Amino acid sequence: MKQHEHSFRVRYQETDAQGRVHHANYLTWFEIGRVELLRSFGYSYRDLEKDGIMLVVADIRCEYFQPAIYDDLIRLVTRTVAARGARIEHEYEVFRETTLLARGWSTVACIDREGRVRRLPEFLRRVEPD
Amino acid sequence: MKQHEHSFRVRYQETDAQGRVHHANYLTWFEIGRVELLRSFGYSYRDLEKDGIMLVVADIRCEYFQPAIYDDLIRLVTRTVAARGARIEHEYEVFRETTLLARGWSTVACIDREGRVRRLPEFLRRVEPD
Amino acid sequence: MKQHEHSFRVRYQETDAQGRVHHANYLTWFEIGRVELLRSFGYSYRDLEKDGIMLVVADIRCEYFQPAIYDDLIRLVTRTVAARGARIEHEYEVFRETTLLARGWSTVACIDREGRVRRLPEFLRRVEPD
Amino acid sequence: MKQHEHSFRVRYQETDAQGRVHHANYLTWFEIGRVELLRSFGYSYRDLEKDGIMLVVADIRCEYFQPAIYDDLIRLVTRTVAARGARIEHEYEVFRETTLLARGWSTVACIDREGRVRRLPEFLRRVEPD
Repeated sequence: MKQHEHSFRVRYQETDAQGRVHHANYLTWFEIGRVELLRSFGYSYRDLEKDGIMLVVADIRCEYFQPAIYDDLIRLVTRTVAARGARIEHEYEVFRETTLLARGWSTVACIDREGRVRRLPEFLRRVEPD
Repeated sequence: MKQHEHSFRVRYQETDAQGRVHHANYLTWFEIGRVELLRSFGYSYRDLEKDGIMLVVADIRCEYFQPAIYDDLIRLVTRTVAARGARIEHEYEVFRETTLLARGWSTVACIDREGRVRRLPEFLRRVEPD
Repeated sequence: MKQHEHSFRVRYQETDAQGRVHHANYLTWFEIGRVELLRSFGYSYRDLEKDGIMLVVADIRCEYFQPAIYDDLIRLVTRTVAARGARIEHEYEVFRETTLLARGWSTVACIDREGRVRRLPEFLRRVEPD
Repeated sequence: MKQHEHSFRVRYQETDAQGRVHHANYLTWFEIGRVELLRSFGYSYRDLEKDGIMLVVADIRCEYFQPAIYDDLIRLVTRTVAARGARIEHEYEVFRETTLLARGWSTVACIDREGRVRRLPEFLRRVEPD
């Protein structure tokens, strides 16, 4: 299974008054995971959009186990679970050291500039797990 | 079933370079829905936290059907689906006029200041659907 | 002097681990103030962008006196200070009841779709203080 | 003059419908700059807060020259301009390669857990430019 690991620090702006990372930010992290996974295969999501291909989130879920807090060094593991037709499914795990903080899943759909669903370009389908 | 409707405009800051609302913001909207639902019953989430009770998101999901765009007048419907033990489940629908843009579900868990899971206070259990 | 008052509640997502509103959010509030000021004159910023006119922030400043906290009912007063050439200057005051929490100033510049600076449309120059 | 350079990529979530980075995010970047500047001297802002010392923004300003766009590799230069009494002044420059995109200034004030202004701890005053 194709996967990529990306590390970054929790920003103060990402915390909330509960003293933990606001839960919506994990979705922003997952997005970074998708982009960096793609980059690790030699593709740039920015170039993809320049070519008129957009990936939009159709469905996303996150389960939270332990809170991330300010300045934590986060390890985000992103995996492609499926890539066929117009859709790619990813899975995410968010760690602080070896502690699993959260797990997520998403489905992104491929659309063109007019918002019409279109088949994934060949190279994106090759990202599919063997 | 107990439900509440809340209206607000999409902020420019909530959009992204795809010209639509960034998908993570729907989770922020759901949070507003939970708080306003509670307020409609006469309770303040701020007071709840002052009393040492915090509700933290344990699981959240959002399905996206149509994009919300800048300045849309959004109608958010929030429902309590279940409230027992330490957990409350909500369901959300995001509309622009009569068009359903997104639907969400979440489970929040009740914890105390030390982060220990605790039973919902009685009045929160009464929010449960009949 | 032309001014507009807009009220809204602080969102939980806008707070940070210091238990107060993260300072960057005041800029997002100022943006809402500009848009609502324009709306109060009968103009829609969304329509402006559709017509190929964009207002971009060239310079912004905020002074913070007292923290806003979660669920505060904020009263934002937005004023046009000057509007000439390609630029509009605004001034902002953020209140909780009668307490001044912050004060801001900004200059926005008018550009076209290609990013070229252009003169303000006539109706925007009329927003200028008498 | 003490300064620190920090690099990072623009996140998709940081863009807005104008196709550029929303201007409020530069303040979030400046905050990262302050924290990383401190870390480069061997201090952790997280530990500072654990010891009951908080730095809160009292005044911040940003001038924008060129837009940052999605996936840009940003180079943020943060400098301490002054550090005396209860206040530290910083200056920021945001670059894409050698192009200056924005410049900022801020004053942060040192407060204790009760929100009272207090003198900067000795080691923070030593951060002052020679």
